[in-house]
Amino acid sequence: FDVDGMKVAWAGSRHAVEVADRMARLVASDPVFRKDTRTMLSRKELFKDTLKKAAHAWKRIVELRLTEEEANLLRLYVDQPGYVDLHWGMFVPAIKGQGTEEQQKKWLPMAYKFQIIGCYAQTELGHGSNVQGLETTATFDPSTDEFVMHSPTLTSSKWWPGGLGKASTHAVVYARLITEGKDYGIHGFIVQLRSLDDHSPLPGVTLGDIGGKFGSGAYNSMDNGVLRFDHVRIPRDQMLMRLSQVTREGKYVHSDVPKQLLYGTMVYVRQTIVADASKALSRAVCIAVRYSAIRKQFGSQDGGPETQVLNYKTQQSRLFPLLASAYAYRFVGQWLKWLYTDVNQKLEAKDYSTLPEAHACTAGLKSVTTSATADAIEECRKLCGGHGYLNSSGLPELFAVYVPACTYEGDNVVLLLQVARFLMKTVSQVAAGKQPVGTIAYMGNIQHLMQCKSAVNTAEDWLNPAAIKEVFEARALRMAVNCAQNISKAPSQEEGFSELSPDLLEAAVAHVQLIIVTKFIEKLQEDIPGPGVKEQLQKLCSIYALHLLHKHLGDFLSTGCVTARQGALANELLGKLYAQVRPNAVALVDAFDYTDHYLGSVLGRYDGDVYPALYEEAWKDPLNETVVPDGYQEHLRPLLKQQLKLSRL
Amino acid sequence: FDVDGMKVAWAGSRHAVEVADRMARLVASDPVFRKDTRTMLSRKELFKDTLKKAAHAWKRIVELRLTEEEANLLRLYVDQPGYVDLHWGMFVPAIKGQGTEEQQKKWLPMAYKFQIIGCYAQTELGHGSNVQGLETTATFDPSTDEFVMHSPTLTSSKWWPGGLGKASTHAVVYARLITEGKDYGIHGFIVQLRSLDDHSPLPGVTLGDIGGKFGSGAYNSMDNGVLRFDHVRIPRDQMLMRLSQVTREGKYVHSDVPKQLLYGTMVYVRQTIVADASKALSRAVCIAVRYSAIRKQFGSQDGGPETQVLNYKTQQSRLFPLLASAYAYRFVGQWLKWLYTDVNQKLEAKDYSTLPEAHACTAGLKSVTTSATADAIEECRKLCGGHGYLNSSGLPELFAVYVPACTYEGDNVVLLLQVARFLMKTVSQVAAGKQPVGTIAYMGNIQHLMQCKSAVNTAEDWLNPAAIKEVFEARALRMAVNCAQNISKAPSQEEGFSELSPDLLEAAVAHVQLIIVTKFIEKLQEDIPGPGVKEQLQKLCSIYALHLLHKHLGDFLSTGCVTARQGALANELLGKLYAQVRPNAVALVDAFDYTDHYLGSVLGRYDGDVYPALYEEAWKDPLNETVVPDGYQEHLRPLLKQQLKLSRL
Repeated sequence: FDVDGMKVAWAGSRHAVEVADRMARLVASDPVFRKDTRTMLSRKELFKDTLKKAAHAWKRIVELRLTEEEANLLRLYVDQPGYVDLHWGMFVPAIKGQGTEEQQKKWLPMAYKFQIIGCYAQTELGHGSNVQGLETTATFDPSTDEFVMHSPTLTSSKWWPGGLGKASTHAVVYARLITEGKDYGIHGFIVQLRSLDDHSPLPGVTLGDIGGKFGSGAYNSMDNGVLRFDHVRIPRDQMLMRLSQVTREGKYVHSDVPKQLLYGTMVYVRQTIVADASKALSRAVCIAVRYSAIRKQFGSQDGGPETQVLNYKTQQSRLFPLLASAYAYRFVGQWLKWLYTDVNQKLEAKDYSTLPEAHACTAGLKSVTTSATADAIEECRKLCGGHGYLNSSGLPELFAVYVPACTYEGDNVVLLLQVARFLMKTVSQVAAGKQPVGTIAYMGNIQHLMQCKSAVNTAEDWLNPAAIKEVFEARALRMAVNCAQNISKAPSQEEGFSELSPDLLEAAVAHVQLIIVTKFIEKLQEDIPGPGVKEQLQKLCSIYALHLLHKHLGDFLSTGCVTARQGALANELLGKLYAQVRPNAVALVDAFDYTDHYLGSVLGRYDGDVYPALYEEAWKDPLNETVVPDGYQEHLRPLLKQQLKLSRL
Repeated sequence: FDVDGMKVAWAGSRHAVEVADRMARLVASDPVFRKDTRTMLSRKELFKDTLKKAAHAWKRIVELRLTEEEANLLRLYVDQPGYVDLHWGMFVPAIKGQGTEEQQKKWLPMAYKFQIIGCYAQTELGHGSNVQGLETTATFDPSTDEFVMHSPTLTSSKWWPGGLGKASTHAVVYARLITEGKDYGIHGFIVQLRSLDDHSPLPGVTLGDIGGKFGSGAYNSMDNGVLRFDHVRIPRDQMLMRLSQVTREGKYVHSDVPKQLLYGTMVYVRQTIVADASKALSRAVCIAVRYSAIRKQFGSQDGGPETQVLNYKTQQSRLFPLLASAYAYRFVGQWLKWLYTDVNQKLEAKDYSTLPEAHACTAGLKSVTTSATADAIEECRKLCGGHGYLNSSGLPELFAVYVPACTYEGDNVVLLLQVARFLMKTVSQVAAGKQPVGTIAYMGNIQHLMQCKSAVNTAEDWLNPAAIKEVFEARALRMAVNCAQNISKAPSQEEGFSELSPDLLEAAVAHVQLIIVTKFIEKLQEDIPGPGVKEQLQKLCSIYALHLLHKHLGDFLSTGCVTARQGALANELLGKLYAQVRPNAVALVDAFDYTDHYLGSVLGRYDGDVYPALYEEAWKDPLNETVVPDGYQEHLRPLLKQQLKLSRL
């Protein structure tokens, strides 16, 4: 098939391929951005290296007058978490979204030029997902027209914010607003943390890094921080006042800006997380597919040459569903980008009707794609055998740097429960005759979907997208309806929801998987140029859907939409599809168009020259600086020479 | 219930509790064995620390005249991978198992006193699971009565052996034996690698460490090594000659010692791996359960105090099956210990009839318990929310140090295929009227198991062990028979096996899960002292079996042994069991009797004083040595002061 055409389908447009390629090469060719010894650096060296790369990236962005699109791609390919992620990704958007026009005019120009560096200080040592439980206080003092920021307990210490520990000069801090003796709940405040002269923390501000995290390299380049306030005063106008204000006299008043506007930001952030999932997953899959085509193990029974492991059905049945998932997440991510535009247009037109659906949809997709991606990276690592355990394979760092996505911006289980709550509401609305729209439109088809039985009769019947869609819709709807019925038997709605929550999680996952399958199918209804490109994607779409059907067969069978025989036919077709994808597998990962620098893996090298590279990498380890290891004289020689000083008791 | 009684059930005996407790405290109270800053050490510091701990442990073992049991426990609680693991776990057993009496007499006394340090050099850069593919050669030269050890290619470099890189003086090296121009396949040779005077590599020997591995701390304390030979000569009598010899003239001859004796060692090693799985899993579960009892999130709708996360059904449904699995693996591990004794007795009596069954059983248990444990540790980490991502939680290191168990001593997928091959053979033997024994005895009951339908009619019916056992047996047998039937349709047995291999993996897992469930049930038929102890274990046994039934519901439904309604009843019962286990959950992990030192987790502290400890740990990070970070002057200040030196193009 036409690999160039596939690159366009993956990237979204010819332009996107071109600009991504240009930025990737810019980064790969610049020695400052080297990362091949990153996992060997100490924490301090790694952090300093991150500061260096951030400054250098900014220098290049300014020098080359890069567009915002180009700058974002450049940062992506630098591929090292750091304070700039929070500055651009959270601090600036928070001011844009929650600041008044005046506040934006004051703060954004400074942020745009990096005269200040900002982070987003929400979570606390004792409080994560439950924002309403935060303890930091911002008490208005009318005598000086100031807020007093304070950390009343140890558990109220701000904890985790990226960029807070060492780099940021400012933060948007979330705290309980107290005025006239009343607690008005959580609000955002712009707080200066460090001196702009010498970077030392301001009086009353305690700052530090919260310590090492999972993996070598990985997220340790980020200064996730701790922050305590001891009665720190800020001017009243540093409260973010777009939605509500405190007046000079200390009165709390709401503005006429609707709260719903904040949802736009949430949809935006989660859309980027889904896009990141497809990036992380595709990197891991690219490494595993390429190495599986190089690596040989065992052979024919008669002692002939060994076989490429990619030819083994067990390897294919574990790896190709992940390859298909990478494409599936990519396309649902592209659709989410469209949804974000759509939501914003509706918000501007003050149409809030589709917000709950958009919110549930993005929450669910964030949860399902990040959980599956984290598992998939580790599976790819295992699929590379023992060598996948070496840092030089790139996979340990990719896993360690990726997994927090399951927790940040909404814990994945908490998010699924939000989806489930929305589904339960929808079920009761459908029962009341309301016609649902968007990704839950299928629930309106309740009469058919509660009773239908799949008509699939041969393995090839499963190639029909309509056959797939029907059973995924029926499964999702029936699981939701089952839950709703069981909840209604409980003494109260809340008790029922809580008791049934493990089942509700499964129903929510079924719903989200349906969305991903549907968006993949819809993508294939578009015009996709390039000989053979659409055909390959159709195979991947079938693999994505049918591997889910096989994995969750219990759901499909117990809800009665599929028979055991139909399940076996799906499995049979999967085997055939794997065989068809096999010859194109390497080309399908080449279409991601990743440089060796971005992949950062000796096993995933484009030229396939894996073993000499592995051998060469080994010698870079600091332990190889000397032939006889440090510690031999003190701890090995006395042992071997039977000269340990024993204190016989 | 009686926690002391549970400690005995867990440890195996009152004596086992006492000695484990004593050794754990010995290690925990010794400052040399501290590990709280381990993840912050550089590779060289970490390796030196490992050498120090190994020498100190040996010193204590000699000083205190510890028994072998005590010494093993002491090393376990030191909890840091190092060369001694391979010396005792592989080098010594290889000589014991494959050396002649004369060779044992010569080498073992030196090894027992650490006059030499040995490792086990089998895998090569290009060759892992397929031992027959190894390339290193040992060519006999009759003119000097020596073997010439040689690495003919880059891919023949020995790669991965622990202790090889820096510590070992000797190795058992596996190489192709060539004599009289003929290749006799893979044999073991004792080869000296380093000078006993100054530890430098001997002429012709290239040695090094293969580089950093997954995680901070973790397995980086081990010097997994690379080794190349350039025509290195060793005396003929350093070939391990128990099973076959090369004579002075270069004739290759077999001894009359049966090959099967080697199986005993394999059963032994895999039994210890299963025991390790229950240890690693129980540590992770202990941390997650304790922290879930401390951590609070959200609350009642009316803004009351927040709820312990352990009270959430979603937390319980993810965590309690892992708690049950820890106990399940513990008990199947205890049974494997018995099996090892049994196998050895039969070997001595030259009864080899049960060997294939014992081999398949241990291979399968190794595969299933290690894969599930690796996943479970990561799940426990996620169950601790964001803080689980901090090294101070102990969970990142526990995961990183554990995962190689899925690959070493037989890749888990390769092992499951061996189990599947054995199952296919058994199915055809049963069809031919042979009565299977041991863990496959149930297959003899084929008439009943192919047709039976579960009689379960209420949720509580699933409490009956016989009801559980029947459906697990029926599921496993039917999946195996299905595979056998599908294979028989293929053009050849081999082709069919290869095509069906993804299904065969699932059939093998079903068989192994049955073994674990059965051994748990059998354990409960024993006398288990202590009020309430057996009752708690019965609940855990039910949870273990029923969560598998729920997870693999597709298997049970598609093979027709369970109905959708029965599946729903099982799920209903699970919810009730979780509620019953909840009040005892903390006591059930206290019964593991782990010291805070061994757990190595701020979140898993026995006293529950989590937040002050997290806060305190943070400040130990090297990044917190200075308030203003290293790199500020060079890379942050110029950015903030708009003084980056730009080269405008």
